[in-house]
Amino acid sequence: MSEHSAPGGGRAGAARRLDVYDTTLRDGAQQEGLTLSVHDKLQIAGHLDALGVGFVEGGWPGAIPRDTEFFARAAKELTLQRAVLAAFGATRRPGARAAADPQVRALLDSEAPVVTLVAKSDARHVTRALRTTPEENLAMVADTVGFLRAQGRRVFLDAEHYFDGHLADPGYALEVVRTAAEAGAEVVVLCDTNGGMLPPQVGEVVAATAAATGALLGIHAHNDSGCAVANSLAALQAGAVHVQGTLNGYGERTGNADLLTIVADLELKLGVPALPAGALREATRIAHAVSEITNVPPAARAPYYGSSAFAHKAGLHASAIRVDPDLYQHVDPQLVGNDMRMLVSDMAGRASIELKGRELGVDLGDDRDLLSRVTDRVKADEAAGYTYEAADASFELLLREHVDGRRPSYFDVESWRIIIESPAQGVRVSEATVKVHAGGRRIIATGEGNGPVNALDAALREALLPAYPELADLELVDFKVRILDASHGTDAVTRVLIETTDGRRSWTTVGVGPNLVEASWEAMVDGLTYGLLSAGVARR
Amino acid sequence: MSEHSAPGGGRAGAARRLDVYDTTLRDGAQQEGLTLSVHDKLQIAGHLDALGVGFVEGGWPGAIPRDTEFFARAAKELTLQRAVLAAFGATRRPGARAAADPQVRALLDSEAPVVTLVAKSDARHVTRALRTTPEENLAMVADTVGFLRAQGRRVFLDAEHYFDGHLADPGYALEVVRTAAEAGAEVVVLCDTNGGMLPPQVGEVVAATAAATGALLGIHAHNDSGCAVANSLAALQAGAVHVQGTLNGYGERTGNADLLTIVADLELKLGVPALPAGALREATRIAHAVSEITNVPPAARAPYYGSSAFAHKAGLHASAIRVDPDLYQHVDPQLVGNDMRMLVSDMAGRASIELKGRELGVDLGDDRDLLSRVTDRVKADEAAGYTYEAADASFELLLREHVDGRRPSYFDVESWRIIIESPAQGVRVSEATVKVHAGGRRIIATGEGNGPVNALDAALREALLPAYPELADLELVDFKVRILDASHGTDAVTRVLIETTDGRRSWTTVGVGPNLVEASWEAMVDGLTYGLLSAGVARR
Repeated sequence: MSEHSAPGGGRAGAARRLDVYDTTLRDGAQQEGLTLSVHDKLQIAGHLDALGVGFVEGGWPGAIPRDTEFFARAAKELTLQRAVLAAFGATRRPGARAAADPQVRALLDSEAPVVTLVAKSDARHVTRALRTTPEENLAMVADTVGFLRAQGRRVFLDAEHYFDGHLADPGYALEVVRTAAEAGAEVVVLCDTNGGMLPPQVGEVVAATAAATGALLGIHAHNDSGCAVANSLAALQAGAVHVQGTLNGYGERTGNADLLTIVADLELKLGVPALPAGALREATRIAHAVSEITNVPPAARAPYYGSSAFAHKAGLHASAIRVDPDLYQHVDPQLVGNDMRMLVSDMAGRASIELKGRELGVDLGDDRDLLSRVTDRVKADEAAGYTYEAADASFELLLREHVDGRRPSYFDVESWRIIIESPAQGVRVSEATVKVHAGGRRIIATGEGNGPVNALDAALREALLPAYPELADLELVDFKVRILDASHGTDAVTRVLIETTDGRRSWTTVGVGPNLVEASWEAMVDGLTYGLLSAGVARR
Repeated sequence: MSEHSAPGGGRAGAARRLDVYDTTLRDGAQQEGLTLSVHDKLQIAGHLDALGVGFVEGGWPGAIPRDTEFFARAAKELTLQRAVLAAFGATRRPGARAAADPQVRALLDSEAPVVTLVAKSDARHVTRALRTTPEENLAMVADTVGFLRAQGRRVFLDAEHYFDGHLADPGYALEVVRTAAEAGAEVVVLCDTNGGMLPPQVGEVVAATAAATGALLGIHAHNDSGCAVANSLAALQAGAVHVQGTLNGYGERTGNADLLTIVADLELKLGVPALPAGALREATRIAHAVSEITNVPPAARAPYYGSSAFAHKAGLHASAIRVDPDLYQHVDPQLVGNDMRMLVSDMAGRASIELKGRELGVDLGDDRDLLSRVTDRVKADEAAGYTYEAADASFELLLREHVDGRRPSYFDVESWRIIIESPAQGVRVSEATVKVHAGGRRIIATGEGNGPVNALDAALREALLPAYPELADLELVDFKVRILDASHGTDAVTRVLIETTDGRRSWTTVGVGPNLVEASWEAMVDGLTYGLLSAGVARR
């Protein structure tokens, strides 16, 4: 029901309108330690579209080269079902004309249907940071909004530092909102840029601004006082029609408002539809998929989608939960695609494992004992660092191992060895030797690479190709490493996810070990095994 | 100013009373993956006392053996300056007498001056989970509170599931509060046990309960709707005089209300003194010290005390922050013992590099040419995969390289070699040999490890220790790997971040290479170099 009304939509539509506006790719990317490639951004935009958000803010074209490239590639490569792309940028420079400002031009060149302009709304920032006059700042807003509207773009205005500005000088802050709305800004987004507001203040300022200006308002909150979600809800309850946030609450300092939590609170607590019907069930999957892309470990304690969000440990509750789960859960976890987990019982995860088995054509519901054994194995493996959520192919091999009584296997490994030398005269070589048994023979093969893992990959293919020429079609296309429980430095456990493709589809496998090479070897062997298995190849 | 009035303190003192009640050791310990020994608990109690909280809930004596032991040892070993110990437990069993209930006896035996009793206040939980009658539940409250009061203990009552209960059957919920207060409970703590409330609901229920019962009320919130802090503040603003929470927001599922954030919001936003004067400046230190004890990595994005809470990356802000930091910070970070940090990244320009230089004691503003060269180098390095925002120590080495004309260096590397063998008979060994020049000698040393990186670390230390015995104090404590632009599988570039400590402080260095080992080598060499440099060691 998040209806994105036509540009310039007035107050008449206010009762029904709710914009869910994601800024993971722009403001979220300001997070310390988070660096997104253009490829990462395109992938995340696809996930956001699948989630059903109304708007995806892609970045700041013209200011950040990677963002310029994102919009150029998005125009060609990205097909969004529902979300509308927004380009972020600043109002024109003081003393210039919007039409002649290269950064404003870059916003047009991005071809994004929506432009979100950031403007100062705190008079102190105008004079002390922007170093211009309050009057010129208003002219910059009017000129830039008007120019982009005349060029056929929908325009949202992010009123930066709005709450601090309104508290210090409400007259000027309101004038910025009025100026933007009169120039054609569809929504004026009140930003708590420094993030220090509390919900009652936010509600009061939003209500006062709506009453004084009649503009459609939005909210952009940060979590510096630990209240980003509550502040966003307070603004919506005070009349705002547009809410900005990020996946996993990514963002500078303490992060932006967590968009999935806000949306879940709206739908499940306040009965306000925010995403397409049923889309909220994708929340947990998408939050975790995006964690894999950003390589920022997911927060276990995140509301709704965190892996611990519905995990119960307290002995006080355990017996009662079995009787009546609703008494101990604030919402049904399935509504957000999550699961209840009992940390002290054997009930954990069986439902999802059964479902997963059915997905793969194995009905574990017929054999409760088999289901128990698979569940126990998954729990033990995951405690050791494996993650089957992200590694379907490894899970299918595990399942076949339990159903058929042995793990699918095409070759036996005797040993391997790798030698890595420091680079000298520009030559860097890792050399791997594998000893395997396949096709009735013992084979010793050596491969080279620029690192240990691809040397090992080269050696293994070299060894197996005579027996399995089908392997020539398989290629290793992605490779992710995560150090788990890194409290003892390099003694920590390493998890590797490897994506392999046969040119038509791709699959992911997981390996865990005391070091990168052992973990990679396990994932690599699984990846090739799964490829041969799904091609219907018999062991030779 | 948090005044803990005498037991039974009535409404007269309400305007001045504010109990800061910590339940890290009891409810916080319910967190998935968190296990506290008695020694851990005693240490944390000491930190809580240093922070100046009013009450430390130590655990559930009689129900959890470790907690029984905690109280026994606390009575002998723990000298608290300010905090009062509280023992948590349940009201007596249905149909028994409090005086004869062994668990109630265990509460007395704990010798804690305060007993916090948990009682059902939702009639559905009474009948369906406790399996007794609503009347018997009231009798259990009256009997247990009265007995403990008669034994000279101060009694707080945690009214479990209070908000759900009040929404479903306000009459019964209020009756529980009245019964407890009349029996002598000093404070009745309204618990959002399932954690799903929103601030306006919390405020309304607290106000209604205060009006109907006249009891002194407290709030115990969980973060399932992402609003634990805002809910706690809403309750206090509606008249509650007692707030419960945990350090680092530890707790079951999504965690308990984050006590430090609540206290900082109260003191810095609402002008309500909650800790002894100046104690808030210990917040960051204590939050991190407790992370070390629990071995749960600290959340970088935590409000106020997170390592990123005052870290700025956006180029948009950097130039202005230099002029006027107050414009871009919701509070002065020193008030919570934290620091502003400027992150260097490709999004930021010369201004943030200049600021960063100043942080490190180098004024790049005097030499525009030098500033340009450093900025160009940072941009080129970051395009190649380095990230200096997460690697302060590598940035400082880069800066010194440009300022001094050469990179700080303590040894010269001739070559290194690593051999990794597949695990056989449970033995897995990586072996590294390094050839270096240090202290006027050529040294060849070999080290072993369970992976290539710690084999290399072992070999390098072995080689350098004779010349630099100071290296014995340095330890590699964290290790992160990221594969960048992994569109060609294992051909991708690898980035490694290594954290090294000298036992007092730690620093992060970055390495980038075609494989994990080369990238790790670079980060490791930088980590040791920085450690020697900051210890004031001269090249030997």
